[in-house]
Parts: sequence; structure tokens; C-alpha cells
Amino acid sequence: MKLATLKEGGRDGSLVVVSRDLTLCQPVPAVARTLQAALDDWDAAAPRLAETYAALNNGHARHARPFDPRHCHSPLPRAYQWADGSAYLNQVELVRKARGAEVPASFYTDPLMYQGGSDSFIGPRDAVVAQEAWGIDFEAEVAVVTGDVPLGATPEAAARAIRLVMLVNDVSLRNLIPAELAKGFGFFQSKPASAFSPVAVTPDELGEDWRHVKLHRPLVVTLNGRPFGRPDAGTDMSFDFGRLIAHAAKTRELEAGSIVGSGTVSNRPPGLERSSIENGGVGYCCLAELRMVETIEQGQPATPFMRHGDTVRIEMFDREGGSIFGAIESTVACASDHAEGND
Amino acid sequence: MKLATLKEGGRDGSLVVVSRDLTLCQPVPAVARTLQAALDDWDAAAPRLAETYAALNNGHARHARPFDPRHCHSPLPRAYQWADGSAYLNQVELVRKARGAEVPASFYTDPLMYQGGSDSFIGPRDAVVAQEAWGIDFEAEVAVVTGDVPLGATPEAAARAIRLVMLVNDVSLRNLIPAELAKGFGFFQSKPASAFSPVAVTPDELGEDWRHVKLHRPLVVTLNGRPFGRPDAGTDMSFDFGRLIAHAAKTRELEAGSIVGSGTVSNRPPGLERSSIENGGVGYCCLAELRMVETIEQGQPATPFMRHGDTVRIEMFDREGGSIFGAIESTVACASDHAEGND
Repeated sequence: MKLATLKEGGRDGSLVVVSRDLTLCQPVPAVARTLQAALDDWDAAAPRLAETYAALNNGHARHARPFDPRHCHSPLPRAYQWADGSAYLNQVELVRKARGAEVPASFYTDPLMYQGGSDSFIGPRDAVVAQEAWGIDFEAEVAVVTGDVPLGATPEAAARAIRLVMLVNDVSLRNLIPAELAKGFGFFQSKPASAFSPVAVTPDELGEDWRHVKLHRPLVVTLNGRPFGRPDAGTDMSFDFGRLIAHAAKTRELEAGSIVGSGTVSNRPPGLERSSIENGGVGYCCLAELRMVETIEQGQPATPFMRHGDTVRIEMFDREGGSIFGAIESTVACASDHAEGND
Repeated sequence: MKLATLKEGGRDGSLVVVSRDLTLCQPVPAVARTLQAALDDWDAAAPRLAETYAALNNGHARHARPFDPRHCHSPLPRAYQWADGSAYLNQVELVRKARGAEVPASFYTDPLMYQGGSDSFIGPRDAVVAQEAWGIDFEAEVAVVTGDVPLGATPEAAARAIRLVMLVNDVSLRNLIPAELAKGFGFFQSKPASAFSPVAVTPDELGEDWRHVKLHRPLVVTLNGRPFGRPDAGTDMSFDFGRLIAHAAKTRELEAGSIVGSGTVSNRPPGLERSSIENGGVGYCCLAELRMVETIEQGQPATPFMRHGDTVRIEMFDREGGSIFGAIESTVACASDHAEGND
């Protein structure tokens, strides 16, 4: 089934069930007012949400209304846990290669993961408010939402705890990263609020494209309306979501509603010169990767980071061409523009 | 006023108002069932909670019942944000000195802060379940809970957003830290679930001891019943809570209920040889600091990390000797013992 959260009814918004084709939705206050409430009591809530989903798809839902992703918040407007992995090692290898450094052997066996902030996500169509000087970048990723995961869970047990799948734009402020990482405590200011896809879906909804605990579909990224990337999220993912969740749960239990991300999707191209979409490649899911390729090829990056007014769109389509999750559309704004827009 | 959360009524527990002397408490379901709910609508909730607090202290509360910290969860059993600073630079200087490294100049102007996991805290008397080989340590700190903090808030505005003050044991797994930090993404597995004091208090409750956005009282730490530390939390704190919150809010807004920590409390001793309590010093708020002093003095640490069965107690007393927040008492357990204990 497909679930979304409308921007109405308080800080956590209002849970709706969404039809498979994303045209209709229905609030379910008798089951759960918020997605977190449904996740807190998933075994009781899921069958009842599934009934509404079936009714929506059959045209029998009594309280159906049109679904408009512009009214959506992120499925969890605020969450208790946002742990983002870095499972596509091609990207890690490029970063190091651009720097002239080696990839440590442990990176191939022990997932990279950072602790993200989760108190205040932006919605899928909300502005990214940031200064251009900070080096504004997007990172297109796949993420899962878990149920309760016990401390020390195996990857297999962790995989069974996956409740929902969604997309994420893990907004990154590249120019703040070097100084922040040099301090040794990881990301903080360089990872502002992320935006998630309007719709989160249960893994069964993905059919054969959800296998080996990975999502096997191209992640489609456009920048200001032009194709920028379409790498396959199931290809070159070195650690599946079960392993990523188990990594996060090694020394702590994870509470229901924890979000675990894949890291920027990235495919290993046959050769660097063929990696961009213009050259017939699959392109990229963040500007930094293109800039690293440019650095390796030309000695320095040529593509700038995002400027105020730039828009990145992140979406994934099923085999029939239907949008699975709806699109994330993040436009960059400066604080003063944003304040004016809010007046 | 003083607030606590009892372990009853669901994942977020049940909010109670606690009398100043910590002997009585009263649920306030008509005001807010949970502390997060009160923080979400603080301006409406706070005056009503204050009425109950006054009634409790005057002996006029109709539904008062005995308060037992053993039945408490952390005030926020799960939170949306847990950002922990490192505001006592004496500790940072010792870490570097033990390594033979310099402290970067930026550390004196730009707070160190890491993004903590907040989905599943342990209670103030709950076991810390971890393997001894991980190098189990405590970190006794002060933390504040904020209201909504806008993106880019000044330290002054951030200070005004402080709603509550509490203590925290930021459990740390020292032997996992070097490999984790070497990966460059900061702490994750090395920072398992933290434990907070049974009671959170409003700043006005602290009187003159809350000034310059710092808490000026000794933080009292005992290890297996023996005095271990009593440094003053207001002394040698290089960044006040306003600056720490503003640092966290530089590129993102903080949602009501965000927790911001001080980092391990540490006072600069007149000389290393006089830093331990046995030698007339104020002692330490974590084992690592003592081990660093031992390393500087003797070439290697002599004090082991915590072993299964060890208990650390963290508490703070008002000028009359009353416990302000109740005590955190964390006993270390291995996973199998803990499972038996739960049977």
C-alpha cells in the first residue's frame, strides 16, 4: 500500500492512504491520525490501512478525495531516527580518487553511516533555504522506515523490520563539510533538513523490483528540467538495507519509525567519459559526483553547486511508467526570499 | 517547575508534575499526556503545569501520589533531536595532550558538536547493555530542552528558547570510537542510548544558579558508591547553552523538544596531580578523562572502563542539599544478563 502525510492537523500532519496511481487519497483517523502512530502499532494498523488501500484502488472508497503531492509533508514530518548509510561505494571511490587517496579496505565490509538530524524535515515540495556560499547540493537516495529493531539484530531480522520504502533528497552543504569533518565529530551543519518523497510504500508494492533487500529501479533526477541522472538503485549497492539497519542497531535498539537511508545512488560506469547522461551514461544523483569526475578528468570541477532558484526533481517510475512515490521537487531559496514567500 | 515521565501509558510514557522536594507527583492528562505534547504547545501548557506544581508544593494537590524515580523513564523517552556539544575545552585539551596533539584554534570559537541518536533513550535507572570489550564509559553532562528554534537563531534568541534543564549520562563506547572516527563520518555505534535524569526542571527553578545561560552547581558523580567527580558545571564552560543551540540551528530549524547537551563537564585543575578527588581535586565526569591524566602522568591508563555490574550515579544538589533532578543510576549489563533480568 501507499501512504502519505498531508500538511494539516498539527506538527505531524495527517496520515492518508493513497491510491496506487496517486490520484486519490483518504484520511484514516479511526485507524491512525499520523504515520508515526500507525508505525507505533503497525500490526494492528496495517491490515486496516490495507483495506482502505484496496477500496481506493477499486473505486469503492467512500471518503476518497483527490491526492495532490503539493499538499504533502514528508511522510514523517519529524522522526525519531534518521541514519544515512553510504552503500554505493562507487561514489566513495570517486571522492577518494579525486583527492588522490585510497579507499580503506574496511569500507568494503563495514558500512559507512552518519547520524542525521530528524526533528524537522522539509516537505517534498518545500524550499531548501540556504546560502549559496555553503555549496548547496542534493543527494538522491532510497530510504526505508523500520518497525522496532532489537539491539544486535542480524541483517536478516533487520530486513524483516522494514515497513516502508521512500525516496529522499539528503540536502548537503558541501562547502561546510571539510571544516566540519576536520573537527572529527562528523556532519552537523553541513547536513540540513532532508526532504522525502510525498508517498511511502510497503515493500510488497514494489513486486519483483524489491529483491535482495534492495530496490531495483532507476532513480530519475532532473536539474532545472534537464536530465541529470538515472542510475539503478539496485545496482552497485554494496550493502543492502538489512545490513545497513543491522549496522545502526549494533549497539542500540531502533524504535519504530526509524529511517535508514542508502546514501547517494551511484552506478559504476564502463568509463568515466561515459558516465554523464549527455555521453550516454546513467549520470549522477548529486552534483558532487559530477564535480569529482570533472576534477579527475580536467583537474578542477566545472559544474557549480545549486544557486537560488535552481530546482532538483527526484522520482522513480514503475515498469508501466507510473510514478511510485511521487516526486521530490526541491527549489533552493535564500532566507529573505523564503521569508517574503511566507508573508 | 519540575516534570518527569513515568513508564506507563505507551512509548512516550506519562507526564507528571513533580514537587520541588521530589516526594510527590501528579499526572496531568487534561493538560498533556506526554512531555512532548506539552513542549509542542508550551505556551498553553506551561501555566497549567505551573498551577499543579504550586498545588503539589503547597500540599493542595488533589491527585498527588508518591514520586519514585525508579518508575521514571527519561523525561523524553524518545526525542526528535539530540545534539551534544563539547563545551568544556579542558577535556578536549586533555584528549589532545594525551595524544601529543595541539588543539586547533577554531575549537575556541566554533563549538564542537555531534549529532546523537534520539529514538530510544534508556531510563535513568535502566541497565546500559553493552559488551565490556567495547570500552564502556559514562559522560556526566547537563542538557537543555528547547522550544522551536528558527533557522539561523542568534545565541540570545536561542537562550530564550530553553524550556527545561536536565542531566544526562551520554554513554560512550570508547573502544569503538577510534575506528569509527577514522571513517570520517563521526560517532554512530560508539554512542549508544543515553540516560537522562528522572526530572527535568524549568530554568527559573534554578534561581541564581542559572545565569549566563549556564548551570552553576557541582555535578556529583560516584562510581560504585565512591566519589569520582564534583566539577562545577558553570566553571570552564567555554560555550553557553545559547551558543550551543545557535550552533545547532545555523543551517536548520530545531523543533520543540530538541535536546542540546553540554558535553562532559570538566574543570581545569590547578595541576594534574591535584585533579582527582583523592588528591583534593574536583575529579572527573568520565573515565576517559582520568585515563588521559594517567596517560600523561604515567605513560598509560591505569583505570579500566566499566565492567558488567558497575554502577555510575550522577546527581546535582541545590544549595540546601536537595537533589534537583533526581539521580541517574546506570548499571552496566551484558545482553544475556539483561534478557534474564527481563524474564
